Amino acid sequence: MTKIFAYAIREDEKPFLKEWEDAHKDVEVEYTDKLLTPETAALAKGADGVVVYQQLDYTAETLQALADNGITKMSLRNVGVDNIDMAKAKELGFQITNVPVYSPDAIAEHAAIQAARILRQDKRMDEKVARHDLRWAPTIGREVRDQVVGVVGTGHIGQVFMKIMEGFGAKVIAYDIFKNPELEKKGYYVDSLDDLYKQADVISLHVPDVPANVHMINDKSIAEMKQDVVIVNVSRGPLVDTDAIIRGLDSGKVFGYVMDVYEGEVGVFNEDWEGKEFPDARLADLIARPNVLVTPHTAFYTTHAVRNMVVKAFDNNLELVEGKEAETPVKVEG
Amino acid sequence: MTKIFAYAIREDEKPFLKEWEDAHKDVEVEYTDKLLTPETAALAKGADGVVVYQQLDYTAETLQALADNGITKMSLRNVGVDNIDMAKAKELGFQITNVPVYSPDAIAEHAAIQAARILRQDKRMDEKVARHDLRWAPTIGREVRDQVVGVVGTGHIGQVFMKIMEGFGAKVIAYDIFKNPELEKKGYYVDSLDDLYKQADVISLHVPDVPANVHMINDKSIAEMKQDVVIVNVSRGPLVDTDAIIRGLDSGKVFGYVMDVYEGEVGVFNEDWEGKEFPDARLADLIARPNVLVTPHTAFYTTHAVRNMVVKAFDNNLELVEGKEAETPVKVEG
Repeated sequence: MTKIFAYAIREDEKPFLKEWEDAHKDVEVEYTDKLLTPETAALAKGADGVVVYQQLDYTAETLQALADNGITKMSLRNVGVDNIDMAKAKELGFQITNVPVYSPDAIAEHAAIQAARILRQDKRMDEKVARHDLRWAPTIGREVRDQVVGVVGTGHIGQVFMKIMEGFGAKVIAYDIFKNPELEKKGYYVDSLDDLYKQADVISLHVPDVPANVHMINDKSIAEMKQDVVIVNVSRGPLVDTDAIIRGLDSGKVFGYVMDVYEGEVGVFNEDWEGKEFPDARLADLIARPNVLVTPHTAFYTTHAVRNMVVKAFDNNLELVEGKEAETPVKVEG
Repeated sequence: MTKIFAYAIREDEKPFLKEWEDAHKDVEVEYTDKLLTPETAALAKGADGVVVYQQLDYTAETLQALADNGITKMSLRNVGVDNIDMAKAKELGFQITNVPVYSPDAIAEHAAIQAARILRQDKRMDEKVARHDLRWAPTIGREVRDQVVGVVGTGHIGQVFMKIMEGFGAKVIAYDIFKNPELEKKGYYVDSLDDLYKQADVISLHVPDVPANVHMINDKSIAEMKQDVVIVNVSRGPLVDTDAIIRGLDSGKVFGYVMDVYEGEVGVFNEDWEGKEFPDARLADLIARPNVLVTPHTAFYTTHAVRNMVVKAFDNNLELVEGKEAETPVKVEG
């Protein structure tokens, strides 16, 4: 009987692991909450492949230990492969897959919800309610339907975000160097980023972190924007010059800022700093502001996305084990 | 020159007052931030009508004082007329108008945003971020698109709410004793409330506070609902048996609760209790829960709504002053 062994399974993944198991009665599934290390590799002994997900490096020793236990088919539940010793993987004849897309909708929904919260001044109202100040004035909201929403980047995430904003009744405009023919026909695109900055009340970034986009939101672009603009970055930290945003917030030009990503997030996000010295004073300042919503790169983190990560990784691994072509293979080269 | 005097003008109303003034150069507009009382009635002397909005009673003395200053045309910027001494108003020959609808969208948007926040576990994540715990697990979100959203009451607000939820990609079902023919044709309606309770992951109330609807959400209806249901009440406090909700939250059956209204809200909401003894222990408990979002009847409170309250009240008052039929008159009878 085919057997797949999974490492570092979290509580929130278990329902989907069970779902996959139930749908594949001919495959034996075993798992641990432990990370894959040279020491834990033996847990997978007898399995035909492993399903993994960890920040910890997949070192030469770890890969060798897996191979010593007869396993060279490894399926990641996430996208990133930077922590794999690819030279060693190639030498040992590993086949590797990843899950390149979990749930674009998770990210688009988060952007929309957080933007709406900024418009409503929800954080100010929540803080008032928490301290039992139940007066409504002067914490007045702006309705989403009254906004011109400018979407920078009209890939899958940008398009879902546009659809949500239109459901609210907002007027949506967009900019992208690669124009989607259908959106173009419907007249969404403005001619330039400058035009978008000039017209939009809410600006949301859905573009990749390529050199041309680094610090695209800066003092100059903010100067072009409308008074009381809301800026949303759930894409990549380097797109935004955070100091420029802070100047815009301080001057009152920027009404609010949504950030799920941050230039300095590596080593800071997904850590528990409670009761410890916080390593980034600028980030602490942003977190404390009533018109800034910080989330630690969690826009992706939904049950839908986690289900996809688990189910797609197991699907991939079974394909490898059965000698078929996996849907999303990773190039293994030193 | 026609003159209209306005009482109790707040900061957030001034831009819209200015807008109306600019559009009516032939009308003299004066205002105060003071409430209308027997003492302040003389401020309006020389005006043809007054525009008002206050919780304070419009007593016989107050109305008499206005009449003594030659003013019997009074336009409310809000809907409620319970605090007007109608017998006296009739005796003095008052003509009164109100603004029955400010912005249904304001309320629908609030319901949608708060429901989405509950699904995302945003309050838990925000509280983690505020204390510098930046770990994402186990605070996992549910995507709106994956939900069956049950809308109870398909008037204007319910319909806007449905449209927003569909923009997210959710499946929307509805129940109303008065079926909208267009929605019926599109197949939105389930046959009974029980059916809606059984199918919906999110249940939002948009029905009036009539006797048949009092405590429609109770132990029995919650028992019929799905595990992990989200309940939203931005309509009227009495629709919900709050103790039943608390039992549902405590048992884990109810995933989260959104409340902008509350059975015991009169005398508690729109007051500042900071540093004072809070008068409602049950409400304090709800406010403190990580899966309950309390707002103090602020769903209506948007710039769009306030603009409508100001502009429509002035429009009404000018119509009265010019001897025309006002758009939304109030019946004046003792």
